[in-house]
Amino acid sequence: MQEKGLLIVLSGPSGVGKGTVRKELFSQPDTAFEYSVSATTRLPREGERNGVDYFFKTREEFEEMIRDDQLLEYAEFVGNYYGTPVEYVRATLDAGKDVFLEIEVQGASQVRRKFPEGLFIFLAPPSLLELENRIVTRGTETEDIIKGRMKAAREELEMMELYDYVVENDQVERAAGRIKSIVIAEHCRRERVQHRYKKMLEVD
Amino acid sequence: MQEKGLLIVLSGPSGVGKGTVRKELFSQPDTAFEYSVSATTRLPREGERNGVDYFFKTREEFEEMIRDDQLLEYAEFVGNYYGTPVEYVRATLDAGKDVFLEIEVQGASQVRRKFPEGLFIFLAPPSLLELENRIVTRGTETEDIIKGRMKAAREELEMMELYDYVVENDQVERAAGRIKSIVIAEHCRRERVQHRYKKMLEVD
Repeated sequence: MQEKGLLIVLSGPSGVGKGTVRKELFSQPDTAFEYSVSATTRLPREGERNGVDYFFKTREEFEEMIRDDQLLEYAEFVGNYYGTPVEYVRATLDAGKDVFLEIEVQGASQVRRKFPEGLFIFLAPPSLLELENRIVTRGTETEDIIKGRMKAAREELEMMELYDYVVENDQVERAAGRIKSIVIAEHCRRERVQHRYKKMLEVD
Repeated sequence: MQEKGLLIVLSGPSGVGKGTVRKELFSQPDTAFEYSVSATTRLPREGERNGVDYFFKTREEFEEMIRDDQLLEYAEFVGNYYGTPVEYVRATLDAGKDVFLEIEVQGASQVRRKFPEGLFIFLAPPSLLELENRIVTRGTETEDIIKGRMKAAREELEMMELYDYVVENDQVERAAGRIKSIVIAEHCRRERVQHRYKKMLEVD
């Protein structure tokens, strides 16, 4: 029987740099997991491409996906929907490949309920001040949006409880390296590999 | 309060290459843990140095250490004692540094009882045949010793149950890399870092 892949879920407060870390991971040639592209109703930022960064959907299209149960998780965040199409995730895991999701914290807790055996990684800011700096220097948001995000971030940090690992995003290459280490380590967990060695003992 | 270091225990069947993997790990400049040198009554192999590879002891000296409770663990294996002096381990962990032990499987289960929170890594051969090849090509043992070791290896593989991680020693640099990844991942475990972030939430 084909061994199933790992479901790797990267989440964390808005503005912490999930997308940057994910891009760093997937720019490295030895990254051996498949990226699951999310669907969203928010407008593309400069340089974002449909089907690569997100599947950009209208609100009507997105709500149809919800009704048809085509989403592993979805969340509404700052007025927009974000979600993960389920079909690609299941097919890739069944083929024995690891799947990587980069999603908002609301969505991550939905995935936790459906895939408790998944690998949940919380990307954390070095400090809340640092988080604020990052949001401000993005330079495209009003002060009210920033304040709202700070409040959300505090709530989201409390959600850390649901995760297996916490990776501090002090520096993007280091954060990506830690995530790769976590995936390598999880593949070495005794429960996961034990059955292979039990076979060796049966054959003399 | 100073956060304690991790106790990392590498063990596995005799002949699997624990010493070679340990040497590879400690030859790399970015390895950030301290090696705990074992004590033994076996004779030095060519190139082994006292205080670096082992503390070489007489049987009388070793039994005195046992009586004085100076050993974290000890085992008798193929007619010789092997053990870990406890003082260095406790002092290094208390100073917040990770300590690395490379020990026989008998000893590892003693350490598990005393340090259940330790990180236990089982170094496994790619196959029992491969294990046999390695022992034979070392070229210094009789056939009876080899047969005895094969039997021991099968028993030791059954001991895998006690470990957190299994690292296959298919290739020494890869095995060392996996061990480093496991240590990095363990430092990111949520339980371990959560209290740091809780502090951030208390301070507004």
